[in-house]
Amino acid sequence: MVSVDEAYRIVLENISTLPIQEVNIKEAVGLCLAEDAVSDIDMPPFDKSAMDGYAVIAEDTLSPSGTPVELQVIEEVTAGQFPMKKVERGQATKIMTGAALPQGADAVTKVEDTEPLEGNRVKILKGVEKGKNISPRGEDFQAGQVVIKRTTVLRPQEIGVLAMIGMEKVKVYSTPKIGIITTGNELVEVSCKPARGQIRESNSYSLAAQVFQARAEAERLGTARDDRKSLITAIKRGLKKDLLLITGGVSMGESDLVVSVLKELGVNLFFEKIAMRPGKPMVFGKYYKTAVFGLPGNPVATYVSFELFVRPAIRKMMGFTKLSRTVIKARLETPLRSKGERKEFRPAWLHPEDGKFFVSAVEWHGSADLLGTTKGNSLLIVPESVESLPVGQEVEVILTGEI
Amino acid sequence: MVSVDEAYRIVLENISTLPIQEVNIKEAVGLCLAEDAVSDIDMPPFDKSAMDGYAVIAEDTLSPSGTPVELQVIEEVTAGQFPMKKVERGQATKIMTGAALPQGADAVTKVEDTEPLEGNRVKILKGVEKGKNISPRGEDFQAGQVVIKRTTVLRPQEIGVLAMIGMEKVKVYSTPKIGIITTGNELVEVSCKPARGQIRESNSYSLAAQVFQARAEAERLGTARDDRKSLITAIKRGLKKDLLLITGGVSMGESDLVVSVLKELGVNLFFEKIAMRPGKPMVFGKYYKTAVFGLPGNPVATYVSFELFVRPAIRKMMGFTKLSRTVIKARLETPLRSKGERKEFRPAWLHPEDGKFFVSAVEWHGSADLLGTTKGNSLLIVPESVESLPVGQEVEVILTGEI
Repeated sequence: MVSVDEAYRIVLENISTLPIQEVNIKEAVGLCLAEDAVSDIDMPPFDKSAMDGYAVIAEDTLSPSGTPVELQVIEEVTAGQFPMKKVERGQATKIMTGAALPQGADAVTKVEDTEPLEGNRVKILKGVEKGKNISPRGEDFQAGQVVIKRTTVLRPQEIGVLAMIGMEKVKVYSTPKIGIITTGNELVEVSCKPARGQIRESNSYSLAAQVFQARAEAERLGTARDDRKSLITAIKRGLKKDLLLITGGVSMGESDLVVSVLKELGVNLFFEKIAMRPGKPMVFGKYYKTAVFGLPGNPVATYVSFELFVRPAIRKMMGFTKLSRTVIKARLETPLRSKGERKEFRPAWLHPEDGKFFVSAVEWHGSADLLGTTKGNSLLIVPESVESLPVGQEVEVILTGEI
Repeated sequence: MVSVDEAYRIVLENISTLPIQEVNIKEAVGLCLAEDAVSDIDMPPFDKSAMDGYAVIAEDTLSPSGTPVELQVIEEVTAGQFPMKKVERGQATKIMTGAALPQGADAVTKVEDTEPLEGNRVKILKGVEKGKNISPRGEDFQAGQVVIKRTTVLRPQEIGVLAMIGMEKVKVYSTPKIGIITTGNELVEVSCKPARGQIRESNSYSLAAQVFQARAEAERLGTARDDRKSLITAIKRGLKKDLLLITGGVSMGESDLVVSVLKELGVNLFFEKIAMRPGKPMVFGKYYKTAVFGLPGNPVATYVSFELFVRPAIRKMMGFTKLSRTVIKARLETPLRSKGERKEFRPAWLHPEDGKFFVSAVEWHGSADLLGTTKGNSLLIVPESVESLPVGQEVEVILTGEI
């Protein structure tokens, strides 16, 4: 039996980041950049007006006699055009937001501070300082500059910047091919009414949804019976994936054949039990490049094991540098009892209040009670050998959803 | 000019939740349930063993003479089978985790606390209390019970529960059809090298990514020139969507024709300016059932306006009850200056430390500087008329990404 920390370390030591692929930036949000993104232009690409108004020589508007002053309008530039004429003393160019500043001008007077006059003249009602309402060329970034670093997770902002610098396609780390196999003679399809002793197979659905939340996709490879032949057939198919998730069949019971079948097929297993609750029976191994998780069969144990070990593995494959969910320190709102043996991960409700976090465990009947976990948004960590925690105790909480 | 709160209220008053559609639960994660999900079974569906071990009569193991006691093993049940024989005094049934408890038995002794003997007998090394290691029928939920309420957002846990109760298909609120039109003579395609006075069109990319993050999809309808004909053609196409996003062309400038074209096409506009920075020029209207946002053209203003107004609108259409991003109170780490007029939304970095939140504004050159926003994960709210905020000040921060 390994500790949670040890299991985490072993899993990630044996996971490699996947090869690089090129995708259109339209499909890249949520993926990790696999190259430094270098700009081919200055941004802004020219001294740019930040306002609708008049490009002027600041000194003209700050004359000792004070404003208002009258200037001659020599040209009009809108965004997308380029000014042809140089602004000389006593002159102005009418200019729109985003348009290039004409030569000679060193400030822009907002249109609200002007009054148009007859004969291509304008009255400037308020003086402007040099540089006012101008975004100078290259202020945001320059040609040749690395604007987004390799391994950055691409959010909408980064996607927009990539568009600005002309990177229609971009190198990202690949998304793993993931297979899910569920096992157990008691399992029937969702569309069936369970007979006596049976339950519906639900793990492949919740796991595929967890995979989706991790920005990847999983193929559900069906349910294997608790016999060698059925397991061998299913697992052989699964071993062609980058990552294979199997649920059930990893406890001590005699019908729990997954471990022996994995060994028989040549999967190198690194551990077979973790000192945690729920989720003690969990195996992890490698078969050539394929990572294999034998997850516990109970739905909550499957859910928790995925969050703690599989999700970080998927993220490492996809090039993420932050692998684990964020852990937040919070105050306990209701007292909590634990069996006090293994480290425990308890479904809990975490919420902010006045800049601090509070948490309470939700009512929950154990590792089969998936409905109980729907009342929570997080997993409260009860350290090993702790049997009770009082109200107000500071605890660590893994944020698994939105707050 | 309306206030931010007023604009938010007007937008949401004019947005309706979309019709219900039925989807397979494999496609339902992240969507909102549009019906109460009622269970057709008890869960567990029978008194179930929570352990591998022996189903016993507790009293037999707690005999006054104390353990060990020897019992006769009358049957073996694995998960998926149903026990045939009733356990009588002095008897036990070998049982696997998840299997149904045989009649007569009222507790399960863990396999670790037993020792198999010759002749179908077992030695019970440790007494068990009545009910021990049994999950009673209906403990988690009962047939006829609403297990997931209408409007619940379906996470992996909920998807698993829906599978358990046989809901292969489920009613959810529809996802809006969204169109994006960008406008501006200065815009060129990402694949082009901008000529003098031009920039690449990036808003449709960042907006489509924001839509994707909101669990919806957008069609990019191209870039319209700053002329009536081009705008009318593009907008007419966009008005067939549930939601139309237009960027640019909503300022005071003479080439900003979007507002007049929208009016000409019969779009009912509710406001044309919001007292905020960035994002002052923003219009919102309705055309029959189509909601129309005229967003500012500057990339950061577009980004912020989406987060504040468009995302909640999309979420309302999709049946969400929590519409806005979470606002967190945090302590300011670096002093902050503002122009002190309109309410300001400043790109910022929010991070937890010891159960409290700290925030600092990132270096940022204004509403065109999208690269600046990539350094943040949140938007710090500077209230109107505030010109400076000292270190340690408590501020409100909109969490737009992961912490």
